[in-house]
Amino acid sequence: MSDAAGSLAGLFDPDRVAVVGATEREGSVGRAVTANLLDGFDGSVVPVNPNRDAVLGEQCVASVADADPDLAVVAVPPEHVVDVVRECGEAAVRDVVVLTAGFGETGAEGAGRERRLREAAAEHDLRLVGPNSLGVMSSPPGLNATFGPDAPPAGGVSFMSQSGAFVTAVVDWAAEAGLGFKNVVSLGNKAVLDETDLVRSWGDDPGTDVVVGYLESIDDGRGFVDAAREATDDTPVAVVKSGRTDAGAQAASSHTGAIAGSDRAYEAGLDAAGVLRADSVQELFDAARALSGGVVPASDGVAVVTNAGGPGVMATDAVGDAERLRLASFADGTVERLAADLPAEANVYNPVDVIGDAGVDRYRDALDAALADPDVGSAVVITAPTATLDFAELGDAVADAAEEHGVPLAACLMGGGRLTAARDALRERGVPSYFDPARAAGGLGSLMEYGEVRGRSYPEPEPVDADRDRVREVLASVEERPDNRLGVEAMGILDAYGVPTPEGAVVDDPTEAERVAEGIGEAVVMKIVSPDILHKSDIGGVKVGVPVAEVADAYEDLVARARSYQPDATVLGVQVQETVDLDAGVETIVGSHRDPQFGPLIMFGLGGVFVEVMEDTTFRLAPVGSAEAEDMTADIDAAPLLRGARGRDPVDLDAVVDAVRRVSRLVADFPSVVELDVNPLVATPDGVRAVDLRLTVDPEELDS
Amino acid sequence: MSDAAGSLAGLFDPDRVAVVGATEREGSVGRAVTANLLDGFDGSVVPVNPNRDAVLGEQCVASVADADPDLAVVAVPPEHVVDVVRECGEAAVRDVVVLTAGFGETGAEGAGRERRLREAAAEHDLRLVGPNSLGVMSSPPGLNATFGPDAPPAGGVSFMSQSGAFVTAVVDWAAEAGLGFKNVVSLGNKAVLDETDLVRSWGDDPGTDVVVGYLESIDDGRGFVDAAREATDDTPVAVVKSGRTDAGAQAASSHTGAIAGSDRAYEAGLDAAGVLRADSVQELFDAARALSGGVVPASDGVAVVTNAGGPGVMATDAVGDAERLRLASFADGTVERLAADLPAEANVYNPVDVIGDAGVDRYRDALDAALADPDVGSAVVITAPTATLDFAELGDAVADAAEEHGVPLAACLMGGGRLTAARDALRERGVPSYFDPARAAGGLGSLMEYGEVRGRSYPEPEPVDADRDRVREVLASVEERPDNRLGVEAMGILDAYGVPTPEGAVVDDPTEAERVAEGIGEAVVMKIVSPDILHKSDIGGVKVGVPVAEVADAYEDLVARARSYQPDATVLGVQVQETVDLDAGVETIVGSHRDPQFGPLIMFGLGGVFVEVMEDTTFRLAPVGSAEAEDMTADIDAAPLLRGARGRDPVDLDAVVDAVRRVSRLVADFPSVVELDVNPLVATPDGVRAVDLRLTVDPEELDS
Repeated sequence: MSDAAGSLAGLFDPDRVAVVGATEREGSVGRAVTANLLDGFDGSVVPVNPNRDAVLGEQCVASVADADPDLAVVAVPPEHVVDVVRECGEAAVRDVVVLTAGFGETGAEGAGRERRLREAAAEHDLRLVGPNSLGVMSSPPGLNATFGPDAPPAGGVSFMSQSGAFVTAVVDWAAEAGLGFKNVVSLGNKAVLDETDLVRSWGDDPGTDVVVGYLESIDDGRGFVDAAREATDDTPVAVVKSGRTDAGAQAASSHTGAIAGSDRAYEAGLDAAGVLRADSVQELFDAARALSGGVVPASDGVAVVTNAGGPGVMATDAVGDAERLRLASFADGTVERLAADLPAEANVYNPVDVIGDAGVDRYRDALDAALADPDVGSAVVITAPTATLDFAELGDAVADAAEEHGVPLAACLMGGGRLTAARDALRERGVPSYFDPARAAGGLGSLMEYGEVRGRSYPEPEPVDADRDRVREVLASVEERPDNRLGVEAMGILDAYGVPTPEGAVVDDPTEAERVAEGIGEAVVMKIVSPDILHKSDIGGVKVGVPVAEVADAYEDLVARARSYQPDATVLGVQVQETVDLDAGVETIVGSHRDPQFGPLIMFGLGGVFVEVMEDTTFRLAPVGSAEAEDMTADIDAAPLLRGARGRDPVDLDAVVDAVRRVSRLVADFPSVVELDVNPLVATPDGVRAVDLRLTVDPEELDS
Repeated sequence: MSDAAGSLAGLFDPDRVAVVGATEREGSVGRAVTANLLDGFDGSVVPVNPNRDAVLGEQCVASVADADPDLAVVAVPPEHVVDVVRECGEAAVRDVVVLTAGFGETGAEGAGRERRLREAAAEHDLRLVGPNSLGVMSSPPGLNATFGPDAPPAGGVSFMSQSGAFVTAVVDWAAEAGLGFKNVVSLGNKAVLDETDLVRSWGDDPGTDVVVGYLESIDDGRGFVDAAREATDDTPVAVVKSGRTDAGAQAASSHTGAIAGSDRAYEAGLDAAGVLRADSVQELFDAARALSGGVVPASDGVAVVTNAGGPGVMATDAVGDAERLRLASFADGTVERLAADLPAEANVYNPVDVIGDAGVDRYRDALDAALADPDVGSAVVITAPTATLDFAELGDAVADAAEEHGVPLAACLMGGGRLTAARDALRERGVPSYFDPARAAGGLGSLMEYGEVRGRSYPEPEPVDADRDRVREVLASVEERPDNRLGVEAMGILDAYGVPTPEGAVVDDPTEAERVAEGIGEAVVMKIVSPDILHKSDIGGVKVGVPVAEVADAYEDLVARARSYQPDATVLGVQVQETVDLDAGVETIVGSHRDPQFGPLIMFGLGGVFVEVMEDTTFRLAPVGSAEAEDMTADIDAAPLLRGARGRDPVDLDAVVDAVRRVSRLVADFPSVVELDVNPLVATPDGVRAVDLRLTVDPEELDS
């Protein structure tokens, strides 16, 4: 995130634009952007070029100061860019778009140039897009400050892209895809303004119905989350964040030079931000078209109204597949009304089949009944080409029904040229249409998802009483270690944060071991504690069910085994611990790692075989409150196990939730904790116990 | 499947077509189909209508016999259809299409009519499409024997649909979707010809490059599998089978009246058939366009060649997402060649970025290098609109490269109108193109899947030595039962098929119990055996670790507990069984049920918590051979557990495979076994043991 927060109105609605580096040379960026600006911009365009009198018929001035613009577009050679940007600042031009390439994307020299550019912008508090940007567009003033070949149709979508070519592609495709744009920004290298600034600005812009982005990285994860949470209160945000797969992440990193954070972190971050994540371009713009309508479904029940059986079945499958939707169950009254209004051959249950000879009125009757049903939150309206329909009229009737009932619709126009009139009418009225029922359901699913986002509140996670000094002390002990790892000897940090651990202690002599076991008062578990011995069981470094009377001997035996296994191993002592019956409970895991973009993440999953083989885990940004921690326990596939599947007693879920919440606060409080695993956290009907712990500490962060 | 197998050439390439029920009444089926036939058909069209002299300018005849056609299209009122079809048979017209509705889809009267229609067709050995069909189309002779509004462009796709409206939709959409058709059939009620006949016929048709279907049911599952296996040897088959979801299945069943088989059975059946299953219309036709090319990838490695970084990253993600594809790793020679041929700023690793100023030659150079790489089996070629490219030339160059290298390509044309020339050139040359990289990768994934199908062999499952008389005897014991269920007392059927069971027996007196325990020679497990007591553990009906000396007492105790719990329960005895240590092994489950369309299915999964909570199971048609059974053990998510995850010893996989194979043969051999579960089948490094068994037997099938 840049310092240049606040409104970006100057960028999108200037009165006077200077093109620094304007020229007439064929094929040049300076010519293309000047020509685009001269073609349709409501304000004035001033070419800046000390070597020319005029460019494309407009009189040139020699410097930015002479041009006195609101917005400067910079297309000079890379070595002059920093100077030009300084001149902008000195001339009190705050909004600047740098098209020139040859910065961070090109190696060391370019990276140095980009650093100087950033410094110059900071000094003058500039709102700067680029460098290496295709430019910006804004429909209301007819501003096309890009060197791309076209301007897009006007509309309510504001679009940012970390790929300039993708802007060109989308703009070319927009008309046939039925997309209209308010603002378009090619982000370029994001030296100053980035996705966070744009989301913040567009979130406040009444002309932007939906924000759409193609992103390869998010620079300041937490800042983005804050900005997006505010924006999504009334403006949906949908993005493709590429680099989802390993190969894709590598390709993205080589394309943008950004350090690749894990996709798990992006997933958690975008979810926390309330941003809808699309996996493909088609999904992104299908969502954009559905979200542009602005009305969200009041329930997840979907009505299907069709004039053909087969497509109705396909739509029903598609609704069944959609994560957030289900086929609505009509009330008796709805069925009776449909039966009264439709011919005998019609199907009056959902999916409603108005049959092939339906005219517009019959569709309208069916829609009026279905959309008034209390279980219906949205609807898919399907039409296949028939001779009995006036498709322009049908489009209008469908749009009228949506408006009058306040229920969002997606149309499935199963045909080509014969349905053009319906397609045009629906587009005009803002009702999304698709050929494929699966895409119509996908559009409604996006709306439903946004409805959930809009209904969210983001309470501060509850505070956690903790003995932070004790944690600081335990973490500092890592400085005496050859590596940066701690194990069960650090269990005190869990105690300090109120996470239940088995009774016991790490001791370094047999008498002390015996004393601890006596305190526990029953057979104990004993484990060698050594950072150098990873697989304790394999060397006989673990003893279970040791009676109190045998504890001292067992101590000696464990130490002897460790010494003979690895004579130079550091032995910190022996852990003497209350026996936790794994069979009586469910093994879970609570983990954390620190992401370069999003900071500490908290992970929850089922332990043992589940986490290793099934990877059944879920991630959030840390810290989490109780509500979020509870969501996590419901998110995993094996969630029913915690809730008492197979006739077992449910575990103490409150205790699990509390442990997740406390560990998440611990890792958020201590930036020195790079990675941490509580594995297993054993959950039983009577509570939880953190049985084992590993963590990695960054000594350089111990004081922060 | 009908008896009317064999070639359907008469249907698709007639010389003379009669329209029975031809008329001029506006809006009538008889007029529409006559007009369609008169518009473009190479052969002659004879209207049949005793009440008219001429229809649409063609002279009428009074009867089918007078018309003497190769193909009769029937559009008379429903009550006359059966008579007309008889007349066809008597006039030796073998190919008949019945457009008339009002048969099985309309209730009892219609169902009777359809039965009589079927009888008439069988009597005369007719190849009959319909009733309730939109009709058939065939491009080579320009035949449009439908009452739909349009004919589609010609091409290599043959298409069948259980929805007439969907045919209309696809035909209208075909031109813009870039699809061309050889034959199109609206299946209607499938009284005679069905999907199996069409797959068989199109599989033999050199003019059909790919078979595409929209199906709501498959009537004869096993017949379809046989026909499809033969067809897919050189012709890919892709279908949407709708009714995948519960709601969809209900809607499909109400649309077609077919008994809904389980989707698991369809999944297993289509997989066994080698048929590609699409989940959506878009996926279906994306696959069709890719499959039309006919060349399958030699490896799963995909090269990406792009003129823009961002779209290259998106394509890389899409390849990473695709189940059957991965990004290819270029050999050093390929990288060197690319480095020599491309400018310094280009990316010469995969994804190859030829950068924004590339012309056609540079694309061609990059493709020549990439497609010659030994790891590359297919490629995605991406272009965003730039000023430096001639798109028609680019389309040709891409198609040339594909042809010369024999490597299938999918183009990703990221733009709209500016790329039309490329789109047209590629379409002309049979190279599929898409806007979305994810769809391009999906197309290549379909090709890869078909490559796997084409490489399959279908060996007969190995025979199983079994004592079938013993099984027959055990199954017959169900006749003495109040319900149709058997439990552990039927373990003998597993023994008879060579599936290892724990040592032991079901006994009905304490002395016998003791004798069995002595034979086992160590502590045993004892369970009450009663069809009336389902939860044996809950009433203390199970004892583990019973020493031999205590077996007789334990017997009495178990029986007493059962009596006191449920005085009227049938107690068959007590099972005395060798102790199988569940902790030392992996609990698996082998199950079976009988599907109305596909017959017996065999299921394998991990037992215990996995099968109940995670539903981690896989299905095949029974019987399976070793290779298929081994695939099943690899198919489940938890497969690594069997192969020794978490440092455990791998289980005896051969024994698991053998048990699956033997159970599958058992259920295939005995149609009376309606359902069967071996749960658990405990797998250890030393073999397997079937510990528990439940089955349901249909007494009426005992003799079959």
